[in-house]
Amino acid sequence: MKTYKGYLIDLDGTVYNGTEKIPAAVDFVKALNEKGIPYLFLTNNSTKHPRDVAEKLRSMAIPATEAQVLTTSMATAKYVSEKDPGARVYPIGEEGLIMALEAEGLILTDEDPDYVVMGLDRDINYEKLSIGALAIRNGAKFIATNGDIKLPSERGFLPGAGSIISVLSVTTEVKPTFIGKPEPIMVEQALEVLGTSKEETLMVGDNYYTDILAGIHADVDSLLVFTGVTTSDDLQAVDKQPTYTIQSLTEWDF
Amino acid sequence: MKTYKGYLIDLDGTVYNGTEKIPAAVDFVKALNEKGIPYLFLTNNSTKHPRDVAEKLRSMAIPATEAQVLTTSMATAKYVSEKDPGARVYPIGEEGLIMALEAEGLILTDEDPDYVVMGLDRDINYEKLSIGALAIRNGAKFIATNGDIKLPSERGFLPGAGSIISVLSVTTEVKPTFIGKPEPIMVEQALEVLGTSKEETLMVGDNYYTDILAGIHADVDSLLVFTGVTTSDDLQAVDKQPTYTIQSLTEWDF
Repeated sequence: MKTYKGYLIDLDGTVYNGTEKIPAAVDFVKALNEKGIPYLFLTNNSTKHPRDVAEKLRSMAIPATEAQVLTTSMATAKYVSEKDPGARVYPIGEEGLIMALEAEGLILTDEDPDYVVMGLDRDINYEKLSIGALAIRNGAKFIATNGDIKLPSERGFLPGAGSIISVLSVTTEVKPTFIGKPEPIMVEQALEVLGTSKEETLMVGDNYYTDILAGIHADVDSLLVFTGVTTSDDLQAVDKQPTYTIQSLTEWDF
Repeated sequence: MKTYKGYLIDLDGTVYNGTEKIPAAVDFVKALNEKGIPYLFLTNNSTKHPRDVAEKLRSMAIPATEAQVLTTSMATAKYVSEKDPGARVYPIGEEGLIMALEAEGLILTDEDPDYVVMGLDRDINYEKLSIGALAIRNGAKFIATNGDIKLPSERGFLPGAGSIISVLSVTTEVKPTFIGKPEPIMVEQALEVLGTSKEETLMVGDNYYTDILAGIHADVDSLLVFTGVTTSDDLQAVDKQPTYTIQSLTEWDF
């Protein structure tokens, strides 16, 4: 087995399940930390601030700083800012998205925006959707944090970012540029933060269709752990396999 | 030209454009009224009560009673009620839908509904979408008033019923049964109300993809008038042509 110099780690289903930590993952991250191997948490959750994500991890005894968290909102804000510094953006999303866009120095406005940037917004309403649709039709570029269609909750699967975003893509007949996993953009940004190359880095996650495909699309090796969404049966239906599969992260040999 | 004993008439783009009446259509409906030929207005607008639709028509000097209006909400309520009288329905929509469902004696509830019935709802929020998605996933049947993706307004095209409905179809991966035009269901109901047969009835409208296709799907002759959405150029791209096309309803010979 190859030795990796950097790890990209998914959160829900990999490190915890909702509010319950996965003990093997706690030990896994602690081992990375003790060995001094750089790691970064990659999440498609666009609603939270990285400070709050890090705090949640530390409350589970997982070593994590704010700088070790890359949310899809941060990746999206960075993507827009690199293309078009100081651009005018109409945001549809929660605190995590708004703060990430502001942190990149983008101008938030509902008048003549250059971009409509959309993530999960549980405070969605018809006026926000209307402003977004009209702006896209007037030529604003359409960027979306992630395409996840379902949001797991204790009540069952609620509408995910991708489902809400479909209102704008159906109305305008314009498909957004997605930034989060399984797109490679977020993984490429993560490598820059870690300072490791594609060849030296491993993407770790529980969901084939987001985590593992993000690795495959970005040419980064991947480790699928069966503690979340994807089962070994599911893998029989897919063409490109993860580099490694594992029942629990305790089995991983660094 | 064949003589028709009943007319089904679209509203927006055919009889008026937004708040402006189309004078040729006013004379057309007056002529039907004077000749005693039965007619019914068929609209995919699910938000309004038929009483208010008839009132708007009369304010334009178009002879119309509440009984001469069939909205997609009324058609949807009737469809559910015929399949399952007294069924438990979770409605997502505006006054026109809620009142139509109540008028059919259906039970409106957000707990364990047998049906989720959705139309345009400009008061949409995440909780309504969540309740709808969970109910469909728990086996409730998913019925939608109409699939129009855009809502014309003075600001431009806003999200239509079909766009908002896509949140639930994307989240649940269940496609709804659509009732409005271009489905045949609404036309078939309209024939029952008029009391004329398919062969004796003409569907009149400005939109090929809703009005004319509804006629074609229901085996009813159709008349496309070029006062609204569809142009004669558009027709070159379609396979099945309307029975008749006309520049203005003044040209029509009864």
